[in-house]
Amino acid sequence: MYKPATIKDIALALKLSPSTVSRALRDEYEISAGTKKIVVDYAKSVNYKSNPNAVSLKNRRSYSIGIVVPELANSFFSQAIAGIESIAYEKGYHTIITQTHDSSERELINVDHLANRSVDGLLISMSSGTADYTFLQRLHQDGLPIVFFDRIIAEIDTFKVTSDNFNASYEATLSLIKSGCKKIALLANAPRLSITNERFAGYQKALLENDIPLRPDLIRNCLKGGSDDQEVEDAVNELLSVRDKPDAIFITSDRISISCIRALKKLKFDPQEIMVLGFSNSDVVDLLQPELSYIRQKAFEMGEIAVNMLLKLIESKYPITEFETRILGTELHSIKQQR
Amino acid sequence: MYKPATIKDIALALKLSPSTVSRALRDEYEISAGTKKIVVDYAKSVNYKSNPNAVSLKNRRSYSIGIVVPELANSFFSQAIAGIESIAYEKGYHTIITQTHDSSERELINVDHLANRSVDGLLISMSSGTADYTFLQRLHQDGLPIVFFDRIIAEIDTFKVTSDNFNASYEATLSLIKSGCKKIALLANAPRLSITNERFAGYQKALLENDIPLRPDLIRNCLKGGSDDQEVEDAVNELLSVRDKPDAIFITSDRISISCIRALKKLKFDPQEIMVLGFSNSDVVDLLQPELSYIRQKAFEMGEIAVNMLLKLIESKYPITEFETRILGTELHSIKQQR
Repeated sequence: MYKPATIKDIALALKLSPSTVSRALRDEYEISAGTKKIVVDYAKSVNYKSNPNAVSLKNRRSYSIGIVVPELANSFFSQAIAGIESIAYEKGYHTIITQTHDSSERELINVDHLANRSVDGLLISMSSGTADYTFLQRLHQDGLPIVFFDRIIAEIDTFKVTSDNFNASYEATLSLIKSGCKKIALLANAPRLSITNERFAGYQKALLENDIPLRPDLIRNCLKGGSDDQEVEDAVNELLSVRDKPDAIFITSDRISISCIRALKKLKFDPQEIMVLGFSNSDVVDLLQPELSYIRQKAFEMGEIAVNMLLKLIESKYPITEFETRILGTELHSIKQQR
Repeated sequence: MYKPATIKDIALALKLSPSTVSRALRDEYEISAGTKKIVVDYAKSVNYKSNPNAVSLKNRRSYSIGIVVPELANSFFSQAIAGIESIAYEKGYHTIITQTHDSSERELINVDHLANRSVDGLLISMSSGTADYTFLQRLHQDGLPIVFFDRIIAEIDTFKVTSDNFNASYEATLSLIKSGCKKIALLANAPRLSITNERFAGYQKALLENDIPLRPDLIRNCLKGGSDDQEVEDAVNELLSVRDKPDAIFITSDRISISCIRALKKLKFDPQEIMVLGFSNSDVVDLLQPELSYIRQKAFEMGEIAVNMLLKLIESKYPITEFETRILGTELHSIKQQR
């Protein structure tokens, strides 16, 4: 078992009392310069490190930030984490990353573990399965700095940053309508997520403004969020077999966009027949076939903003009571299609 | 600042001494059942949690495992992490993930931070930039359980697990030769990595066995490991402009495979002219265009094996002195090409 050198070990080796060793290492004035040198030199030689857990018991600052995301394999989150790290490292903070695999149980365990391990604050993007926020409300009330990014919740009053999901979906749906599409199917994530609802609302507004009725037979929620290709393939199959077939599919989730492309490839679909537009921060979206028109979120920038908000909370000497929710614009990349 | 309730707070509120509260919470026999109930109920009501840092000072087991990988955006590593977590969670261990962005400086900081935060052990895949392993050797000598996976090093004697990089490259190069290729270019990662050298050796053996001379003008190392598309594009451009052009490109790195595909797309290359085969654990390798024949590593399984090795080290009551290096087979997926 790993046993780093302790103050007791040093005391024994140098035939000093543990309290003398401890005070020498803390450079306290009662200890002579000679003794200090002996202790410090020996401590270095055995690679002694003051136990930071002991230190954090005293000053309660660990210079660690906990990050909780649904899925590392999702490029959006690895890009956001890179943004978080770019600022955190510069400011001398460590980042501790955990993923929930979109399970609310794992989310609770991870958050609890991070809080118990004395992180100075939490950056969290909610799992799609979570309905009960008590565990976070409690930590928030206890004063743990928490900032939400991307998948934010209304229930806790703190700093938040997310994309302009409403407008992104509105503009994307409008672009499909302008290209001549009138039967635009929707593939969406679990309806519980804030982002799912905002993206749905944008889609709905664009349709209504253009006198296109909302057709329930063209709307599918994939509850597993694209982690199950079969679920998405079934949904795509269903959409393509309705009586009055869709002429476009709009996908409001990163992973479902990829699964949809895969389903369309498997079904040997004709790109002339259906336009496909989805949210995607994939690093290889430019190389996908069938091609995907896509909405790209500013993930790296979102990470930077989130961590700056968190550091403000952590480093403030006074309680902060005025919070901001930042809404970031998105980028629409349309593939030119012959129609 | 976050201040969870302490034993002192409880003692003050209940007008008891801190030591009584502490002993009541530890269920010690000197404290009456009535007092225990009062203390425990009140502690629950204020969401008191025994400070796990204080606990870990005593028993020195944190049930946390530190994971250090070069890049979360690389699917190989997110798959390996999923494998690690699948076992760790089941056994009651938390995982703390950090990435080095292939920087040896960041690797040193991350490892140091994890060791200082009392993880029970480390799973590490080395950054391509690291040449000095002293910091790991020291922790290893101090008894911190360490297991290397994928990018392993010879310098430290412990459990290791990696792919059969030599054979994977040998078989892949043979398959290109069998398809009629005789001028097989090589795009490789930084030459410092163990995996780079093993993969090069497999390529070399296949060529020599088939009386194909090794041509230095067809070999390029991309030192940035595919994190810089331009570096790879330049290398591809150079390869395609040598006098006696290659008829295949073999790529010995995951990210360079993707960058190479991107470069070829940009250069509007003719898939009839050059076969492309590379290591790739991309989740969307089946959707890439230009198509890529690929070697897939058993990343999830590698994660499972690595964490099982680490738990063996952590939980062993006796020092372990016999170590194993596990070598996992890989899968070759060839795209049928018309030639």
